[in-house]
Amino acid sequence: MTSSIHDADIGYDVPAAIGDTLDDVQTPAMIIDLDAFERNVARMKTYAETAGIRLRPHAKTHKSADIALYQMQSGGAVGICCQKVSEAEALVRGGVTDVLVANEVADPKKIDRLARLAKSAHVAVCVDDPAIVAILSEAATRHGVTLDVLVEIDCGARRCGVLPGQPAVELASTVAAAPNLAFAGIQAYHGSAQHIYDPAERRAAIDKAIGMARGTANLLRDAGLEPRTITGAGTGTHNLEGASGVYNEIQPGSYIFMDADYARVRATEGNGTIGGFEHALFVLTSIISKPASGRAICDAGLKAHSIDSGLPTVFERPDLKFVSASDEHGKIEDPQDTLKLNDRLMLVPGHCDPTCNLYDRYVCVRNGRVEALWPVTARGKLY
Amino acid sequence: MTSSIHDADIGYDVPAAIGDTLDDVQTPAMIIDLDAFERNVARMKTYAETAGIRLRPHAKTHKSADIALYQMQSGGAVGICCQKVSEAEALVRGGVTDVLVANEVADPKKIDRLARLAKSAHVAVCVDDPAIVAILSEAATRHGVTLDVLVEIDCGARRCGVLPGQPAVELASTVAAAPNLAFAGIQAYHGSAQHIYDPAERRAAIDKAIGMARGTANLLRDAGLEPRTITGAGTGTHNLEGASGVYNEIQPGSYIFMDADYARVRATEGNGTIGGFEHALFVLTSIISKPASGRAICDAGLKAHSIDSGLPTVFERPDLKFVSASDEHGKIEDPQDTLKLNDRLMLVPGHCDPTCNLYDRYVCVRNGRVEALWPVTARGKLY
Repeated sequence: MTSSIHDADIGYDVPAAIGDTLDDVQTPAMIIDLDAFERNVARMKTYAETAGIRLRPHAKTHKSADIALYQMQSGGAVGICCQKVSEAEALVRGGVTDVLVANEVADPKKIDRLARLAKSAHVAVCVDDPAIVAILSEAATRHGVTLDVLVEIDCGARRCGVLPGQPAVELASTVAAAPNLAFAGIQAYHGSAQHIYDPAERRAAIDKAIGMARGTANLLRDAGLEPRTITGAGTGTHNLEGASGVYNEIQPGSYIFMDADYARVRATEGNGTIGGFEHALFVLTSIISKPASGRAICDAGLKAHSIDSGLPTVFERPDLKFVSASDEHGKIEDPQDTLKLNDRLMLVPGHCDPTCNLYDRYVCVRNGRVEALWPVTARGKLY
Repeated sequence: MTSSIHDADIGYDVPAAIGDTLDDVQTPAMIIDLDAFERNVARMKTYAETAGIRLRPHAKTHKSADIALYQMQSGGAVGICCQKVSEAEALVRGGVTDVLVANEVADPKKIDRLARLAKSAHVAVCVDDPAIVAILSEAATRHGVTLDVLVEIDCGARRCGVLPGQPAVELASTVAAAPNLAFAGIQAYHGSAQHIYDPAERRAAIDKAIGMARGTANLLRDAGLEPRTITGAGTGTHNLEGASGVYNEIQPGSYIFMDADYARVRATEGNGTIGGFEHALFVLTSIISKPASGRAICDAGLKAHSIDSGLPTVFERPDLKFVSASDEHGKIEDPQDTLKLNDRLMLVPGHCDPTCNLYDRYVCVRNGRVEALWPVTARGKLY
């Protein structure tokens, strides 16, 4: 015991080094295929430009300042969304200059942090309750800032949001009258619709949401409250809101990566809404045990990818099926017994957002080599 | 924008401070009830002492050097288990002196790290494949260490593990003959049995595992290969293996915290195996929206607790039901409409191990005050 582990020259603390091949990376590791990622970013930029709609990608997907800045500098983004104040803090600290917290913030301490943050970046937030408006106004006044405030309407998800129509107008009036707050418009996001597999059902859900946003916007205008921004939409429906003539901003997140559940959505529609987006996020895993015919065990379990939206698929290996996950193991059916110890597979995670939140960094790969290691800047920033 | 967010005096980066009340903590946060935790640790220590069996708690549950050291110094533990080399590295760096990687390690680079680690701590590892034995032996020889090696048998989980009986004896012989490896015994862990709700079925599964371990141990002794250690068991079955007369070591992890799924196991058996263990781990969450009668939305979604083993329960609030989680939101049925904005609830997570891996620190509370902040030392150490 004379030596120290602190002098370890491989493997410790960082799973890969710049220039490594995929075979060098310590697994499980979260991989970005940079070429596919960049094509996805460019594709959504082109979509937004063609549709004449502002793009404000959701950073809850990636939680990365590197990716947020890339989206703003090269991907047509006017700013980013996030969900939590701590996420906004981390991303602003990382250089992001325009953040919408597309969520309710109720705790006075968090609201104080949000107002403080508005000294360093353009900050907007949603409300669905008049009790919060007073706290936001006090905090903004205390810190000498103006906060942009969007009224969130429940457009079908039955999660947060005031009722559309007159209740939204009343809340907007309260916002508009409050010192140091600016009424900025409507947040109308139908999250659960993004993953409806049937295209007709998905469209029907979004048509209803569009109708609610339109009706509310018209009432607001009648009341002299112009909604500068009408924002919402995710990867699964962005072209529906984008073509609505009502929304002027979209908030897709997963388009940069895609995941196994979005692949199931994509499969229902051929070359529809998300037909062109490619898998760009993977969990690289290794076979650590081949104990029986037809069964292989890999090192990517519940802590390596999130199974809330289904199990991962094995990329470009239709002969293999990921059938179950325990904490640190994945079980793979390998009916043709092709897998050997230390073979490596690329898993497409079931759900990208909570998977990204499991890792400290992205291992970014191009032409088979590690080109960059991007920290997951806001990992664990839940509060 | 003259000020910087770097001078923020609250909320940034750490969700709580020593001395805070629970109402001060920024949510969602992972809370340990220190009194309940210490009672759980003491209860398992007493069990192991009374049963005359060694206790090697599984650190994959908590990934915390503080907790591992407490288990070793005050909780009767002879050492700890973990599942990954990076986890072992982080915990040894944190002061732990005796680690069993209760898992297969196949990658030669990881095996090199493991052998290197054995310069700083007592290190043991499992094998289920003769191809690995040679790599382990080479690495141990290269670093001038001796690695303890346990042969893992598949005792019913159909995950990793060589078949019990003669195949295990052959593998043990290979280990025993390999330079710088010491054959240390048998790993016989039936993970999936821990969560079988029916006590009779659970006992039947473990009876089979015990039979396989016994038969293999007898064959090993016949071959002159004394299995010094026969280890396995989890929280849900530890007293079965403990009373078997076959196992001389148990590896429970969740007993320190309990979770909602173990509460369901506990509910089937009254004061049986785990009747005395208490919930000691919680996700503190706040209500951020109360948009409709009977519905409240909290700030703890898929990134705040793992739902792989079911949704969380609301501690000591049988009137409330956590009904669904999206990335950053939880939906709570509140039929009596008792909840208001900023009310706080303690959630009992569905599955403690992957939940702990989501947070950077434990907020440790006693008598309503934050007494300590313990880092999740090996958070994200998957590789």
